[in-house]
Amino acid sequence: MKDQDYMALAIELAKGTVGQTSPNPSVGCVLVRDGVIVGLGSHLVPGEGHAEVLAIQQAGDKAEGATAYVTLEPCSHTGKTPPCSRLLIDSGIKRVIVATEDPNPLVSGRGINWLKDAGLSVEVGLMKEEAVALNQTFFHFMKEKRPFITLKAAMTLDGKTATKTGDSRWVTGEKAREHVHHMRAKYDAILIGKGTAVKDNPSLTVRQPEYGKHPIRIVLANDLHLPDHLTLFHDDHQTYVVCGKEADMDVFKEKHPTVGVIQLSSQQVEIPELLKQLAELNIQSVYVEGGETVHKSFVESGFVDECHVYIAPKLLTGKDSFGVIGGQSPEWMNDAFALSFEHVERIGEDLFIKAIKKAGN
Amino acid sequence: MKDQDYMALAIELAKGTVGQTSPNPSVGCVLVRDGVIVGLGSHLVPGEGHAEVLAIQQAGDKAEGATAYVTLEPCSHTGKTPPCSRLLIDSGIKRVIVATEDPNPLVSGRGINWLKDAGLSVEVGLMKEEAVALNQTFFHFMKEKRPFITLKAAMTLDGKTATKTGDSRWVTGEKAREHVHHMRAKYDAILIGKGTAVKDNPSLTVRQPEYGKHPIRIVLANDLHLPDHLTLFHDDHQTYVVCGKEADMDVFKEKHPTVGVIQLSSQQVEIPELLKQLAELNIQSVYVEGGETVHKSFVESGFVDECHVYIAPKLLTGKDSFGVIGGQSPEWMNDAFALSFEHVERIGEDLFIKAIKKAGN
Amino acid sequence: MKDQDYMALAIELAKGTVGQTSPNPSVGCVLVRDGVIVGLGSHLVPGEGHAEVLAIQQAGDKAEGATAYVTLEPCSHTGKTPPCSRLLIDSGIKRVIVATEDPNPLVSGRGINWLKDAGLSVEVGLMKEEAVALNQTFFHFMKEKRPFITLKAAMTLDGKTATKTGDSRWVTGEKAREHVHHMRAKYDAILIGKGTAVKDNPSLTVRQPEYGKHPIRIVLANDLHLPDHLTLFHDDHQTYVVCGKEADMDVFKEKHPTVGVIQLSSQQVEIPELLKQLAELNIQSVYVEGGETVHKSFVESGFVDECHVYIAPKLLTGKDSFGVIGGQSPEWMNDAFALSFEHVERIGEDLFIKAIKKAGN
Amino acid sequence: MKDQDYMALAIELAKGTVGQTSPNPSVGCVLVRDGVIVGLGSHLVPGEGHAEVLAIQQAGDKAEGATAYVTLEPCSHTGKTPPCSRLLIDSGIKRVIVATEDPNPLVSGRGINWLKDAGLSVEVGLMKEEAVALNQTFFHFMKEKRPFITLKAAMTLDGKTATKTGDSRWVTGEKAREHVHHMRAKYDAILIGKGTAVKDNPSLTVRQPEYGKHPIRIVLANDLHLPDHLTLFHDDHQTYVVCGKEADMDVFKEKHPTVGVIQLSSQQVEIPELLKQLAELNIQSVYVEGGETVHKSFVESGFVDECHVYIAPKLLTGKDSFGVIGGQSPEWMNDAFALSFEHVERIGEDLFIKAIKKAGN
Ligand SMILES: [Zn+2]
Ligand SMILES: [Zn+2]
Ligand SMILES: [Zn+2]
Ligand SMILES: [Zn+2]
Repeated sequence: MKDQDYMALAIELAKGTVGQTSPNPSVGCVLVRDGVIVGLGSHLVPGEGHAEVLAIQQAGDKAEGATAYVTLEPCSHTGKTPPCSRLLIDSGIKRVIVATEDPNPLVSGRGINWLKDAGLSVEVGLMKEEAVALNQTFFHFMKEKRPFITLKAAMTLDGKTATKTGDSRWVTGEKAREHVHHMRAKYDAILIGKGTAVKDNPSLTVRQPEYGKHPIRIVLANDLHLPDHLTLFHDDHQTYVVCGKEADMDVFKEKHPTVGVIQLSSQQVEIPELLKQLAELNIQSVYVEGGETVHKSFVESGFVDECHVYIAPKLLTGKDSFGVIGGQSPEWMNDAFALSFEHVERIGEDLFIKAIKKAGN
Repeated sequence: MKDQDYMALAIELAKGTVGQTSPNPSVGCVLVRDGVIVGLGSHLVPGEGHAEVLAIQQAGDKAEGATAYVTLEPCSHTGKTPPCSRLLIDSGIKRVIVATEDPNPLVSGRGINWLKDAGLSVEVGLMKEEAVALNQTFFHFMKEKRPFITLKAAMTLDGKTATKTGDSRWVTGEKAREHVHHMRAKYDAILIGKGTAVKDNPSLTVRQPEYGKHPIRIVLANDLHLPDHLTLFHDDHQTYVVCGKEADMDVFKEKHPTVGVIQLSSQQVEIPELLKQLAELNIQSVYVEGGETVHKSFVESGFVDECHVYIAPKLLTGKDSFGVIGGQSPEWMNDAFALSFEHVERIGEDLFIKAIKKAGN
Repeated sequence: MKDQDYMALAIELAKGTVGQTSPNPSVGCVLVRDGVIVGLGSHLVPGEGHAEVLAIQQAGDKAEGATAYVTLEPCSHTGKTPPCSRLLIDSGIKRVIVATEDPNPLVSGRGINWLKDAGLSVEVGLMKEEAVALNQTFFHFMKEKRPFITLKAAMTLDGKTATKTGDSRWVTGEKAREHVHHMRAKYDAILIGKGTAVKDNPSLTVRQPEYGKHPIRIVLANDLHLPDHLTLFHDDHQTYVVCGKEADMDVFKEKHPTVGVIQLSSQQVEIPELLKQLAELNIQSVYVEGGETVHKSFVESGFVDECHVYIAPKLLTGKDSFGVIGGQSPEWMNDAFALSFEHVERIGEDLFIKAIKKAGN
Repeated sequence: MKDQDYMALAIELAKGTVGQTSPNPSVGCVLVRDGVIVGLGSHLVPGEGHAEVLAIQQAGDKAEGATAYVTLEPCSHTGKTPPCSRLLIDSGIKRVIVATEDPNPLVSGRGINWLKDAGLSVEVGLMKEEAVALNQTFFHFMKEKRPFITLKAAMTLDGKTATKTGDSRWVTGEKAREHVHHMRAKYDAILIGKGTAVKDNPSLTVRQPEYGKHPIRIVLANDLHLPDHLTLFHDDHQTYVVCGKEADMDVFKEKHPTVGVIQLSSQQVEIPELLKQLAELNIQSVYVEGGETVHKSFVESGFVDECHVYIAPKLLTGKDSFGVIGGQSPEWMNDAFALSFEHVERIGEDLFIKAIKKAGN
């Protein structure tokens, strides 16, 4: 086996735990001595042992003189665990192969320098692309200091989401709806508007806690006027409501003490300030499920990183049926928000289209 | 080479001429004697020699004792040319391999019976699927006695076709628009509504006459109130206008003597009657380019065989921008017109989606 | 359709007749006017109409102003048919697209120049690679002035062709043997040695005359001492025997008046002189089926263009069993005859390996 | 993630350590609780912790209530480590998914029964095929009680391994020779005959100890007459010589005290007895590199499980050059040893062909 084979195994280890380590990235580590793997580790539970720690525990004495393959630069800060760079040095590791640097500009390169200063041989960049792709939203968050935003919609082939009466059951088929459940599980938060909350009274849960957690639910409601009976207020999972500066928080909090409230400094919910507040809550990714008005706000703000559109093979027709994005049309087609298609997939009878923000938008 | 190889060559011959033989199907013929191809033919020009005629001309004396591979049942009627079944018999052909029977129920099987009665060995069905696919609209027309209808639209990823001001230049990129030009060339007619005619004043031509003909242009205008200056009225290609029973045909005809007029027996244009009239003109396929109202009429009538949707990677937004299909929304999502996706393709930056009518719609 | 589409159709036309036109190449021609195919032709029977002739016959008046797509440079010599270059000019063709020049250095470019001098627009090189591949042995013969030589063997995985008793029924399975029959049909001649002729008394025919002809059979026998009863001497197909200068031709000819005799100027059969004589007979390709001694002669002479080895999944074992190539081993492994693998294919239970002479051998 | 995803990860874990666990199989284990992976383990070093042990160590308290995914039935015997079945029960695991049973007929099913008796939910068979393929030679050994035998040869396209002078440098190119080094590392032992030992004086090492060990080298020499200076006798890796009952072991042992000697009860080395003795040494797989005579013995004995043949694109020629398998040819082609082709691959300029013993041979 070659370096690349061992790093590929480290990446498999990290891939296995994608989704369960948030807000930490998923990381894998393989220790090899004399052509023998002597330790395997993956960061499993946020707040507990890093990948390097677990791998070194497994290796015991055999870590001495070994090569470490890690998918992310070893940490250099003393957090809930001691810094892994120190641990690698103390264990007698001689060589460290790192797939990619830490994306946090404040610490990027520091772990690598520690290792080099201690005399270890360090190589950086092997399978970097794969390692970054594993933790896309984490890298994005660290670089941009705001959550990664995905707009999601399900529509008919003629671009409709509901009939004039609001009926939207079901635009897409069962497999596509199951696909949405899997998607939700990958995000830190799911966001909807007041209209959708009132009309559908959704639970926005994932079918089963795939990664050991349910995403946080966020409802945008400028005035906080939301029915008391909403499912989101009465189950075991975390919900936040977001309101404008004139909303009466105290009344709401009294009624719903377990629901978080984020009050913004403007009268209407403004996306840029909202994202700042979510970043402070360490929410690194948000799956925006609509409706029309919420989608419009995000597009207008420019904070859209990805779009997921499910298309059902049907024609609803109607000027009076509902569409994906509301608000006011721009005057010119040239003013549309530009994306590029990245992926198209057939899911059951439907199509799933993934488009990403076009650079320079 | 085996029977299948020769039939595959006959199909290649037919494929080469798809589009140029309308209203006739494209047909290929290969004659083989003692393991040697002695004649090749393809129906080239409507009104002139059938595939079998050209192949037998090439073979000359060598047709005697040969096997004929034809992609469609040889004809049995005396039209502009003598019937090919007779010619095959007279030429001394001993064996005929036919890919598929004639779809016209009135004559289907007659050519084959003639051949059998004359003592030729006849086999039917080799590569039938490919042979039928070559002439999809022809087979449809012969079976259904009405043209094959394709609805075409170009929209943004949020289902919009134009801004609130009507600006639609350009929803999709150049490659997708070029794709549309190629598509048009495959249809006997292109159809639009009065609104589109007035707003865009399109020429609806193909960039170059790919198959030796320009499709006929058809404009639906209940009242025949169309501006005199429309490009469609003043170029070299054939245009028809379709109107209701109260429209004043005489005035229109005087102004536009070269434009055909189809007057229906109802006040508004009704699709079923329209299609009957087009069938009488031997128009076997129609490419319906919109706008909203025209598309609605077709969906409502149920006469939609295929949908071509081009999707641009952009979000236009707006409740007041234009969509693909107008009219009134149904009450329930379940009442949408059901399709199934058949093909998705990336064309330049855009997507091309082809969906076909779901059986039992 | 574009130039490339039309040329692809011309190549399909030529491909259909590969094998049946020898010693002529297979050629296809498509005539297009105003986006409509008006004539299709393929050279069908050696000595009769060239592809261009047949296509122009089909087109009739419509050839005037058309573009011709031909897979090979139109001929410029007056042979059994008038030169096609002249015919293209006389028919009013305006533009000629040629896939590849004539490989015969004496006339290469002459047809193209005629066309240009007559004012036609000429383009050369479209799909050249495919057009050359169609006529590989023809191009080779025209360039090298000697037949293309393929060595063929069937062996076990340990390199054995027969047991010590000479039993070789059957090394390979039925599908591989059928594959050999198809291969034989592609060559002008099949060649074996005296030993194989005596031991196996083969008929060396193809199962059915796939391309209207049976390959010529050639037997190498220095002394002409061959049993009178050999099947090769008593069926309807052509056989040649090749002998050295001291063999008694007269006796042999008296006994076998229908068998051709090629007497060489050396005592033993020398491959270079043999190939010159075969070239004079217009034999453009030879399939050499062995045995060991014949294969050795060809390898030693260096005149091996391609090797076809069928490998059966079995181990025969034995120092005393028979191998593929006899004679004396070279002293050094470095002196082996160098090839490169071009193609490996599973045929039934066996493998078919095609290797070609390495450049610079 | 679903059961299959977790088992796939367990298989990745096992795959990473293939080769380094001999004579134990490679095994992977994943522990999952509430949709979160809480422990990962792979059997790393023979004699140390099994996969389940390491995974449970990582999980700590979180093992309680978890599901275990293991690629092989947990062990039920108290060896160097306590039985894993007991450990799974004691750790509070609730459900165990097993890819495949233990192949050892004496214990197969026992671990699973323990788990079931203790009230755990147990499912067997998920991804069985992949799990068995991981440990092919281990499964073979456990079932057949003798090593898995691979015959290896490198030959020219005409089946030759060396010139008449014995020159075989190099039949194949560098990439193929490197491929052989990787292959050797996968076997417990490499075996050659006396002739090859004397002629080539090979070291039979792997370039680097890929899996933490060098394969044992075995030389067959009936009479033990081997030159004293052989490299195999003087490096750091283990060598065994195998001799007949009349060989003088004492003299040899005195000269080469570090070399193992296996004396058989027959005069000549007989393969069946040899394999029994190797099985007692826990040698589970043997890579037989020849020469001709050794290969012949194995084929004759019928104990050939797989053949690896490297073919170089060259023709050596010669009745007097060397072939792959020596001895006496059978009389009839039908008596050849039957294989079936499993894999063909291009390696550099050469071909690598893998064939396996045909069932019922
Ligand atoms: Zn760390
Ligand atoms: Zn006809
Ligand atoms: Zn010519
Ligand atoms: Zn165990």
